[in-house]
Amino acid sequence: MSILVVGTVALDSVKTPFGKVTEALGGSATYFSLAANIFTKVKLVGVVGADFPNEYVLFLKERGIDLDGLQQIEGKTFRWKGEYQYDDLNAAITLETQLNVLEEFSPEIPPQYQDTEFIFLANIDPELQLNVLEQLKSPKLVVADTMNFWIERKKEALLEVLKRIDIAILNDGEARQLTKEPNLINAAKKILSLGPKRVIIKKGEHGSLMISKSRFFAAPAYPLETLFDPTGAGDSFAGGFLGYLAAHDKLDDSEMKKAIICGTTIASFTVEDFSVNRLMTLTKEEIKKRYLEIKKITQF
Amino acid sequence: MSILVVGTVALDSVKTPFGKVTEALGGSATYFSLAANIFTKVKLVGVVGADFPNEYVLFLKERGIDLDGLQQIEGKTFRWKGEYQYDDLNAAITLETQLNVLEEFSPEIPPQYQDTEFIFLANIDPELQLNVLEQLKSPKLVVADTMNFWIERKKEALLEVLKRIDIAILNDGEARQLTKEPNLINAAKKILSLGPKRVIIKKGEHGSLMISKSRFFAAPAYPLETLFDPTGAGDSFAGGFLGYLAAHDKLDDSEMKKAIICGTTIASFTVEDFSVNRLMTLTKEEIKKRYLEIKKITQF
Repeated sequence: MSILVVGTVALDSVKTPFGKVTEALGGSATYFSLAANIFTKVKLVGVVGADFPNEYVLFLKERGIDLDGLQQIEGKTFRWKGEYQYDDLNAAITLETQLNVLEEFSPEIPPQYQDTEFIFLANIDPELQLNVLEQLKSPKLVVADTMNFWIERKKEALLEVLKRIDIAILNDGEARQLTKEPNLINAAKKILSLGPKRVIIKKGEHGSLMISKSRFFAAPAYPLETLFDPTGAGDSFAGGFLGYLAAHDKLDDSEMKKAIICGTTIASFTVEDFSVNRLMTLTKEEIKKRYLEIKKITQF
Repeated sequence: MSILVVGTVALDSVKTPFGKVTEALGGSATYFSLAANIFTKVKLVGVVGADFPNEYVLFLKERGIDLDGLQQIEGKTFRWKGEYQYDDLNAAITLETQLNVLEEFSPEIPPQYQDTEFIFLANIDPELQLNVLEQLKSPKLVVADTMNFWIERKKEALLEVLKRIDIAILNDGEARQLTKEPNLINAAKKILSLGPKRVIIKKGEHGSLMISKSRFFAAPAYPLETLFDPTGAGDSFAGGFLGYLAAHDKLDDSEMKKAIICGTTIASFTVEDFSVNRLMTLTKEEIKKRYLEIKKITQF
């Protein structure tokens, strides 16, 4: 099955202890699409400005991503500038956010996308996420991400989103912030009580947890010695997760666990290079190798 | 096989958001012994003052712990006073440390203990740890713990200890502090290069990692909703780990992994009540049940 993703397409300027890139291809929908695309067809809904480099459009098209839903309008593309420091490579320090064309963005789902069954609502304004949900005809699995910014500013809309989705993906800090509950297991259970059937909590170098009413799953991170640029780790994790599920079109607990490990694996590649560079060359065989390694390091 | 542990026996006063205890039985050797004792015979070397409650001595003896190496001398017992706060239950805040009889402590290994093969050097002055190693005749497996205090004040002695042990157990902050390496995988590898054959890194709610030259193992924490008092989690983890290994007397990678899960399991019980209360009633059957649950939440 194919996937519809609604999120950002951005120009990222990122500095890490290992180098820097300026106005590189980024954004939640971009990372998600390139990761999910390894498993299945992805349709992208987003917006870029008139200044968005045509080479990036061509690259995404060449990779087979359906861009009929990517609006290109007057104005400048969304830009994010951030830094990661040596002593905590997991924490992004935002230096500048230029919303630009995102300020007026209202996602329009093209008619031919509206019956897509697998949906990823990447981290955008929860009011826009609700707007997208209104336009869908028969979603089978809706997964949504969010961030501290929306928890602080649009909590009501976010709670409404949580009521209407199947799986919420958050990082540990966001889960604690949303629920005011320091214990992560309790935080996840509180989020479950707000609506979603499953909650996935991303913990960076500590891996991830997946919790449903009756099940629990703990996945480690892939043991990386060279974390080069963490940008996009979360979105490519989501892309690997949902890409695997949509490709196999089965939603039982066993498939969900395998999907988590696929996401973990792809995220581990993403952070090995700047921007989407590593995703550009990533193959299914490489993913399979790390998937099996993760199996080996967790079995006893 | 039996185990020799050298460490502290203390009176702990602990406050958590859920209650408090005053001068309760504590100390690294105590927690370790009560955990390891579930699997095998434990000989304890340590020191207490004249004020140490006789009921605690009787309790440890009743549990079958060999106290021939526990000196009781003039003066006051080592006391620790600490607090844990609701928003970060994993971080102990030390309010007061009274070394008392520990100040002059020099561990003497009774002759009948000197040929013990399984050794745990709990978190004490690394110079004393070296002193203990000198008194051993034929150790087969030496495991040592340490803490930030010794990394800061006795680094040379600590490096000497690391050269002479088989397994180092540290928490994540200590591993980073010792190696000045923020990436945990790299930190563990640096510690390996200092001498030990294996390094175990404890990460509290995020579980633990075990690294050797050619192997890697990632264990989650048991998903606890009620973390009541984290005191002793690390030492009972070590007790479960080494207790399992000594009881089975096999040191291959497969046994090491099972031992890590035993440690994880016992630590999860320890933190469910104050002091050693939960360890007082803990059974092998309860341990086995959680061990199997951890298997279930990690397999895919």
